[in-house]
Amino acid sequence: MAKKAASKTPAKSAPAKPNTKPRDVKTIGKLRDLAVAVSKRAHSGKEPVIDIPTRTKSNTIWNKKRGILEMGDAAATRELFNLNQAKQFMQTMLHASTIKDLIEADKTSSLRGVFYKAKHTVAGTKENTFDTQDESDPILEDLEVTLGALREELHVFAENRGAMVGNVTLTDKGDDIDCRRMGSGGYALPSIVEPDVIQFKKCEAKFVLHVEKGTVWNRFNEDRFWEKNNCILTHGAGQPPRGCRRLLQRLNQELKLPIICLLDCDPWGHYIYSVIKQGSISLAFESSRLAIPEAKFLGIRAKDYEDCELPEAVKIDLTDTDRKRAGEIAAYPWFEGHKGWQKEIQAMIDNGFKMEVESLITKDISYVTEEYVPQRLEEEDWLE
Amino acid sequence: MAKKAASKTPAKSAPAKPNTKPRDVKTIGKLRDLAVAVSKRAHSGKEPVIDIPTRTKSNTIWNKKRGILEMGDAAATRELFNLNQAKQFMQTMLHASTIKDLIEADKTSSLRGVFYKAKHTVAGTKENTFDTQDESDPILEDLEVTLGALREELHVFAENRGAMVGNVTLTDKGDDIDCRRMGSGGYALPSIVEPDVIQFKKCEAKFVLHVEKGTVWNRFNEDRFWEKNNCILTHGAGQPPRGCRRLLQRLNQELKLPIICLLDCDPWGHYIYSVIKQGSISLAFESSRLAIPEAKFLGIRAKDYEDCELPEAVKIDLTDTDRKRAGEIAAYPWFEGHKGWQKEIQAMIDNGFKMEVESLITKDISYVTEEYVPQRLEEEDWLE
Repeated sequence: MAKKAASKTPAKSAPAKPNTKPRDVKTIGKLRDLAVAVSKRAHSGKEPVIDIPTRTKSNTIWNKKRGILEMGDAAATRELFNLNQAKQFMQTMLHASTIKDLIEADKTSSLRGVFYKAKHTVAGTKENTFDTQDESDPILEDLEVTLGALREELHVFAENRGAMVGNVTLTDKGDDIDCRRMGSGGYALPSIVEPDVIQFKKCEAKFVLHVEKGTVWNRFNEDRFWEKNNCILTHGAGQPPRGCRRLLQRLNQELKLPIICLLDCDPWGHYIYSVIKQGSISLAFESSRLAIPEAKFLGIRAKDYEDCELPEAVKIDLTDTDRKRAGEIAAYPWFEGHKGWQKEIQAMIDNGFKMEVESLITKDISYVTEEYVPQRLEEEDWLE
Repeated sequence: MAKKAASKTPAKSAPAKPNTKPRDVKTIGKLRDLAVAVSKRAHSGKEPVIDIPTRTKSNTIWNKKRGILEMGDAAATRELFNLNQAKQFMQTMLHASTIKDLIEADKTSSLRGVFYKAKHTVAGTKENTFDTQDESDPILEDLEVTLGALREELHVFAENRGAMVGNVTLTDKGDDIDCRRMGSGGYALPSIVEPDVIQFKKCEAKFVLHVEKGTVWNRFNEDRFWEKNNCILTHGAGQPPRGCRRLLQRLNQELKLPIICLLDCDPWGHYIYSVIKQGSISLAFESSRLAIPEAKFLGIRAKDYEDCELPEAVKIDLTDTDRKRAGEIAAYPWFEGHKGWQKEIQAMIDNGFKMEVESLITKDISYVTEEYVPQRLEEEDWLE
């Protein structure tokens, strides 16, 4: 997708260290190409520049056929001899250098770590390379799109959040993780789940049930839902972080498991589903490795209030902000032409209230695990 | 600690179900005693009342000998025939009933779940039992102190947050969890870690290193710090949740492992340490099962800027709020008479800046795991 996509082979002059993983060899090659291009221009007396693909809404394209958000072809040139761009040019080079150090040391770091690594006062001035992390994170995203490499491939991790249990065994850095025997806690999802870190081994599970919150996940794990229904159970502690989304996508693509989401009946739940399914505008350049166009939304559905004969207690009034947000979500291109979703969002607005997964406890402690979800699965009653 | 501590044996009229765990038999007994006391008063024509220990700062006592915060003896009577208290009386009874249902079903629920379970419109009125969760949570805390039972004993869980790896094997609901073989993700800490859920099996580790954030934990796990230094590595994703604190306490008390904390050099880091060590005012009634008076604060220390020859980049200016907060923390009774802590907080204020654990990356990616922490451990250079 990146316009300035670097060649696939690293520069021959300085081969990657032995034992470097294939993924890293590729990224190092891209970093070298970037550096070589800049220095070549400098040595030939031309202004060093970098072409950086544009990460804006206007350069985000809804690829209907693939069912994901993608980045368009627009790019902007970052120039060294431009007072408005010189600092960002320097910052881009600094971060590229840190990334190279990380990869060569076979270590990873956080966004904050990379910021600290590059932050210093420029010699002979009182100017800092970076003042705050707010300046640093977008430069890293620039590098991701310029190099056409995921943040994980740059050895930078996001938060670890979420957990997993179920009928699957995987290998994480050489350790076998049997997700059938992870007690009440579960396997904590790491941030980097690329195939050289995590490999799937044995999997009997027929699908993945992804729930929004750890509290709901606890109910399903305690009731051994994954065992009774032969599945994998995940949560992302709210909006799932990248590691969780990428792992779900790999379970979907490599093991062909349907990803079935159980989220709240509110604009936030709908948004989380939308991000899992199509990707987000801010990370559109990574949709092809994060989005799961086949993901299904099992519930909570607006119709459940009547269908499940829920009591008044489950109702949470929609606020004006909720109504506005619902309208925005309904206008997303992938929801816009989707009759089911238009009906769903309208039904929620007509209800005038939201409903949370946890509210199903009003029927019975285990109603959600023993009746609600199994029945919906049986009837394949979901939105996609 | 609770004034109205119930008798240890359940009412004989309705024995607990067979196979009920000893912990649950005890809690059910306490719930029955509460109910019997209320109904006895009603049947004898007296006003039903409950004595509820007071959870306020003024009823919080610093037990210098034990080194923890405790709740005092003050209690307030909650009366049914009192317009200001009748609703809370009803709410207390409702939640007690939900707790009984949870325990008898051998299931657990979240604070939100318990709220939903009890929320309904009172028959023949337009009045709700509870309107928001803000009303519900304090009633549950009232029950905790009245029954003298931890929230976990009431089968109510908090958030799952944090992870663990290291030289220990434990059993979680019958599953063996070998924390030496948990890959890059780790074992996700559950919320309820009581001895009937989690038992420690084999442990070679000599101490626990507890770090604040998952990002820092990743660095230590990636560098196999726990293997090289024979320890257990935990994080609590910021302020550690109850499950994490309770597990640390059990590791300290049962396995006699020192708990060594690596937190930021800022008032928030100091506060987290204070809570791990002495307990918090709002949960003073649970200190004896959560606080770890022996916990040590390894760093980051104010002196590190000079001692470690850190660059300017690590400095984050203290704000007015930070200075105010630092003053408040310095005045905590357990810090007030502690020369080391008075000096530490003053040194931070004199520096005029905070420092984060992650800033040590400015020295080298693995400086924190390979030099900083091992050196401090070697020299036993910490605050306690």
